[in-house]
Amino acid sequence: MVKLAIGTIGDSLSASSVRSYLAEFIATLLFVFAGVGSAIAYGKLTSDAALDPAGLVAIAIAHAFALFVGVSIAANISGGHLNPAVTFGLAVGGNITIITGLFYWIAQLLGSIVACFLLQFVTGGLAVPTHGVAGGMTSIQGVVFEIIITFALVYTVYATAADPKKGSLGTIAPIAIGFIVGANILAAGAFSGGSMNPARSFGPAVVNGDFSQNWIYWVGPLIGGGLAGFIYGDVFIGSYETLPVTGDY
Amino acid sequence: MVKLAIGTIGDSLSASSVRSYLAEFIATLLFVFAGVGSAIAYGKLTSDAALDPAGLVAIAIAHAFALFVGVSIAANISGGHLNPAVTFGLAVGGNITIITGLFYWIAQLLGSIVACFLLQFVTGGLAVPTHGVAGGMTSIQGVVFEIIITFALVYTVYATAADPKKGSLGTIAPIAIGFIVGANILAAGAFSGGSMNPARSFGPAVVNGDFSQNWIYWVGPLIGGGLAGFIYGDVFIGSYETLPVTGDY
Amino acid sequence: MVKLAIGTIGDSLSASSVRSYLAEFIATLLFVFAGVGSAIAYGKLTSDAALDPAGLVAIAIAHAFALFVGVSIAANISGGHLNPAVTFGLAVGGNITIITGLFYWIAQLLGSIVACFLLQFVTGGLAVPTHGVAGGMTSIQGVVFEIIITFALVYTVYATAADPKKGSLGTIAPIAIGFIVGANILAAGAFSGGSMNPARSFGPAVVNGDFSQNWIYWVGPLIGGGLAGFIYGDVFIGSYETLPVTGDY
Amino acid sequence: MVKLAIGTIGDSLSASSVRSYLAEFIATLLFVFAGVGSAIAYGKLTSDAALDPAGLVAIAIAHAFALFVGVSIAANISGGHLNPAVTFGLAVGGNITIITGLFYWIAQLLGSIVACFLLQFVTGGLAVPTHGVAGGMTSIQGVVFEIIITFALVYTVYATAADPKKGSLGTIAPIAIGFIVGANILAAGAFSGGSMNPARSFGPAVVNGDFSQNWIYWVGPLIGGGLAGFIYGDVFIGSYETLPVTGDY
Repeated sequence: MVKLAIGTIGDSLSASSVRSYLAEFIATLLFVFAGVGSAIAYGKLTSDAALDPAGLVAIAIAHAFALFVGVSIAANISGGHLNPAVTFGLAVGGNITIITGLFYWIAQLLGSIVACFLLQFVTGGLAVPTHGVAGGMTSIQGVVFEIIITFALVYTVYATAADPKKGSLGTIAPIAIGFIVGANILAAGAFSGGSMNPARSFGPAVVNGDFSQNWIYWVGPLIGGGLAGFIYGDVFIGSYETLPVTGDY
Repeated sequence: MVKLAIGTIGDSLSASSVRSYLAEFIATLLFVFAGVGSAIAYGKLTSDAALDPAGLVAIAIAHAFALFVGVSIAANISGGHLNPAVTFGLAVGGNITIITGLFYWIAQLLGSIVACFLLQFVTGGLAVPTHGVAGGMTSIQGVVFEIIITFALVYTVYATAADPKKGSLGTIAPIAIGFIVGANILAAGAFSGGSMNPARSFGPAVVNGDFSQNWIYWVGPLIGGGLAGFIYGDVFIGSYETLPVTGDY
Repeated sequence: MVKLAIGTIGDSLSASSVRSYLAEFIATLLFVFAGVGSAIAYGKLTSDAALDPAGLVAIAIAHAFALFVGVSIAANISGGHLNPAVTFGLAVGGNITIITGLFYWIAQLLGSIVACFLLQFVTGGLAVPTHGVAGGMTSIQGVVFEIIITFALVYTVYATAADPKKGSLGTIAPIAIGFIVGANILAAGAFSGGSMNPARSFGPAVVNGDFSQNWIYWVGPLIGGGLAGFIYGDVFIGSYETLPVTGDY
Repeated sequence: MVKLAIGTIGDSLSASSVRSYLAEFIATLLFVFAGVGSAIAYGKLTSDAALDPAGLVAIAIAHAFALFVGVSIAANISGGHLNPAVTFGLAVGGNITIITGLFYWIAQLLGSIVACFLLQFVTGGLAVPTHGVAGGMTSIQGVVFEIIITFALVYTVYATAADPKKGSLGTIAPIAIGFIVGANILAAGAFSGGSMNPARSFGPAVVNGDFSQNWIYWVGPLIGGGLAGFIYGDVFIGSYETLPVTGDY
């Protein structure tokens, strides 16, 4: 059962809500800066050679470590989403209202855009690579790839962070969230790019003014994230509330 | 002392048991998708070159990170096995009944098969590599290799997760379980392939219809996992129950 | 609101303060030894080839792992700074006095210098590489790069370690602090070098007697660290104290 | 103040002590199997090429992950030493008696020897590489290198695991212990080999019957480990007992 709640503008503009948006903005900026920065660095070190396995390791580890840290530094303030697909997946399970979620989206997208403009400046104007599917792949293959890996990400967010019965798993939740992205980039980096995050893909698209394939990184991640929220929220968290009725008969 | 217990069909089909199978199915699917996906990606990036050290690092890290996360996301629901050898090793120590364990096996195998078919679709039909021993090695060397490294994996599961006296180790158990697989792949990847997991090997075999060496990845892991369950369960956990009898004499 | 406090010489020379300086000295020495050592090793293994992605991974992981451990081993004694920019950022938020902070700086710089001289001895006199911006970059680009990545580091220190409401994040704080440095080196290593730490850059400069670009690694990190202390201390920690006044009217 | 205590044979042969030796034997065997196995794998994948940065990353990560897990799986039973230098360093601080420590040494050495013979079998008789200093280095440089990096390792064991005031650091202690070895191998692998562990070096020496440089990996690690035990035990742990005497005047 989808549990989307609209919420009120008032709640979404309280002082603590505004601090949440700032936390999302800063954490997304720092995550995208390191992640996209590692992709630019690969081009710099190899004179823009085609991606090789060592480069894929570098980029995957940069994203894994930076997302782990990005989630950590925002966790106690905003919940540490850094990703519109995570925010959407959590909204599907009733963990955040739609209006507050929209402000999260704005903060995440702004953070990514600012990170990419900063990268362009500090690298002396090097190209900021945009996400796109590999040659020979269809868009639908890219969308399905992103659905599966974003499902993995948002399912991880639910199981380790949003589940009220997570227990001591909560302590290592940010590591798990970062590392599933690292693992998935090692699989998807050579195919769909391995975004799992509309904000991560949007910043480079804005800086380049190239939105040709950007829809893939909205459609795939939002479907995957929403599906994870629906399944985990309904089947697992939902089961906590359906304990058998016991009476004194 | 082996503590195998059969269990009842009724217990194995309760609502919470069925949720366990679903959790195993999803977590194994996501683990195999990232792990096997990283092996396909190596072929894509290198035009199917022979494995080199950078590629081995990529594949080992993908498996380590993805198994850590896979164990995490199923831990509170099914215990987070994702592997028939782990389920068998835990059954030997009396931690799961045989009937429930068989349902776990089915869920794990299905998860792996679905992951491999999905990979075939999203990569546009690229080959899904199957496990096999390296040229020049005998099958028995492959089996012994898998026995040793699966022993390490299931022993880790016992010491960090199943041991009732694990204490704060339980917090980092999923990381330890994922990372021992990563370490072992760095050793075994060039020889036996480094499976440690019949489900991990079974999915690619099904997709390719090639079961020629698949028995190695059942025999080795099940012996290694069973041995770990026997030793850890008997010598260490068993000792908790043999405290000296004290009386008031 | 900047909360710099001067402190007294007496407090800064108590037995427990002196133990703090020793802890900073040892931890910084061991961190720099592994980090700079990994850069020397790259030159050794490649006959001083230009940095490639595999080498960048090696250097980034060495720094990430060594800083994580360095912070861990000093955390309970000195707080685990190992970095004048961290000490400065914490002073801005009122977490350490200026006089004690200056002793921390001295301990950190000495640790780095001793580490570099030891490296020169044990490697048989190999060159100890100094930090400098990549060819084609301006100094100001290097400074801005270091501001951003040091902001990320010190913001992480605040969110995971200094924040009184950090909760269970504190358990993984040293990992987060080490890994944000690893992620940022994967982005910045090919451009500004990815120092984030005046002490890390100072030791190699002393051993080589080459301070030509050393100012970049003071100015950038101190601005970035101070900014993080100001923002996190003021906006987030500061908000804990501005709860609405409630009275019985 | 060195706190070496001899202990009694009786205590060292109790049932729980014997279980400790078994735990050390198994954990050291599994650690050495993965670590040395990764070095053999490098030779296999590259037809015995000279070590390159990607290979060093593979070997360093294998040791880091495997030692982290090895420490984890023995921690609650034997303390998780896996290394005569750790046992010696802990004996210097009075954390284990000399007689029990000697049994630990025997268990660790046997574990390493068995691991190396198993590797020889499962790899079809490939060479098991022994530790030795790089060409052009003197033995004394190798010894000093090993002193420094083993000091780092044993100091980490003290700060994160043996210190009675370690607090929540204890939760991540096995990770820190494994990862400092990974970081140090990235620095030392190209020079002294980066052993930090007489048992790790002894197994390959036995299998090859080549003890020509083996003394370096006893002298260096034991001095480094002993020094760490002396300094951490005396200066930091020792200070807990020297609280100022307070009276009612």
